[in-house]
Amino acid sequence: MPPIVSLVGRPDHGKTTLLEKLIPELNHRGYRIGTIKHHVHEFAMDKPGKDTWRHKQAGAHSVVLSSPTGLGLIRDVSGDTPVEELVDRYFSDVDLVIAEGYKRLALPKIEVYRSKLADTPLQNRDETWIGMVTDLKQEGDLPHFGLDDISGIVDFLITTFLKSDKEQHVSLIVNGKTIPLNSFVQRFIVKSLTGMITSLKGCRDPKEISLTIRRSQK
Amino acid sequence: MPPIVSLVGRPDHGKTTLLEKLIPELNHRGYRIGTIKHHVHEFAMDKPGKDTWRHKQAGAHSVVLSSPTGLGLIRDVSGDTPVEELVDRYFSDVDLVIAEGYKRLALPKIEVYRSKLADTPLQNRDETWIGMVTDLKQEGDLPHFGLDDISGIVDFLITTFLKSDKEQHVSLIVNGKTIPLNSFVQRFIVKSLTGMITSLKGCRDPKEISLTIRRSQK
Repeated sequence: MPPIVSLVGRPDHGKTTLLEKLIPELNHRGYRIGTIKHHVHEFAMDKPGKDTWRHKQAGAHSVVLSSPTGLGLIRDVSGDTPVEELVDRYFSDVDLVIAEGYKRLALPKIEVYRSKLADTPLQNRDETWIGMVTDLKQEGDLPHFGLDDISGIVDFLITTFLKSDKEQHVSLIVNGKTIPLNSFVQRFIVKSLTGMITSLKGCRDPKEISLTIRRSQK
Repeated sequence: MPPIVSLVGRPDHGKTTLLEKLIPELNHRGYRIGTIKHHVHEFAMDKPGKDTWRHKQAGAHSVVLSSPTGLGLIRDVSGDTPVEELVDRYFSDVDLVIAEGYKRLALPKIEVYRSKLADTPLQNRDETWIGMVTDLKQEGDLPHFGLDDISGIVDFLITTFLKSDKEQHVSLIVNGKTIPLNSFVQRFIVKSLTGMITSLKGCRDPKEISLTIRRSQK
């Protein structure tokens, strides 16, 4: 699972604008980036009138638009999807996920704060804050970056999140819930399953194994 | 994996319009429907100006919009995604997938044909055609349905695709490629993995097990 970091801050302090500058610089350094926008209001993503929009309006649960260059999915969910599940399901092939808007979750956070727009940064700062991007001078111990110090912020993201890749990633979801695995159980499952799989035709060198078992509930 | 059926036909013969009528009737009968639109032109799905659109424009590889009622994903792909992979990845929780626009694949097909708009139905009809929806009277052996016979078409879809659910679904993807499994290998993997998993805390009664193993390529 790729690492995840969240940009937090009051509305209009420039989270999306910062993200728009960070992504090209991270791409330039050779990293693939995924993003998550957490949205608590009514869901809307597609263009009204398009075929996929018409499918969804008609009551399809999940709609996919597939082309040779891009893929889109719009689906119903019943309740907020845990961010770990999002990362596990949709970001297996990116290097870093940057989220906007999960200020209550225990994710590593970088706050964007403009002193002209509010008297203080967010007041609920805790140990999950790992940096500030602001027009203010350094205050406290957190690493500080200027609003335009894109190169400095990217250096910080790379050092913090992208230099400590583990050798192996295992994720197990049972009945929609991520099951935590200690390293012994991880090794046991990996060794057993890899052993079975590599004996199959066309599976000599499995870089990624994805297995789903579903029982009909009828 | 849910079954998949494709609506085919010349442009403007009413595939999307038919789909818009089939989906509510299938929902009414208690089935969850997924749809796939296959698109060979430039990919576009989001609304220009929205935060997620800005993330993608800035160069994010994968962008997710997550809300308590809906979820959207827009991502880059390198080449057309095999339809089986789409179904496996994005439609595990629907009962039937209806596609538009895969007329060259070996999927079961229902053709929509309006005699006022073209002299003949599609000329490449083969054994994957399973029905016609048309204003013409029956010709040949294929089941025929009128353009407004929504109830009849839905009966046909249910009988053909939804009454023969298998007890167990196993899908294995290695290095992005679906690996065909014969029933012995399926049973072997299912029994072994289910045995391991059920001994873990919180996993007594696994209805769906999803496992991913990824090796860092660094």
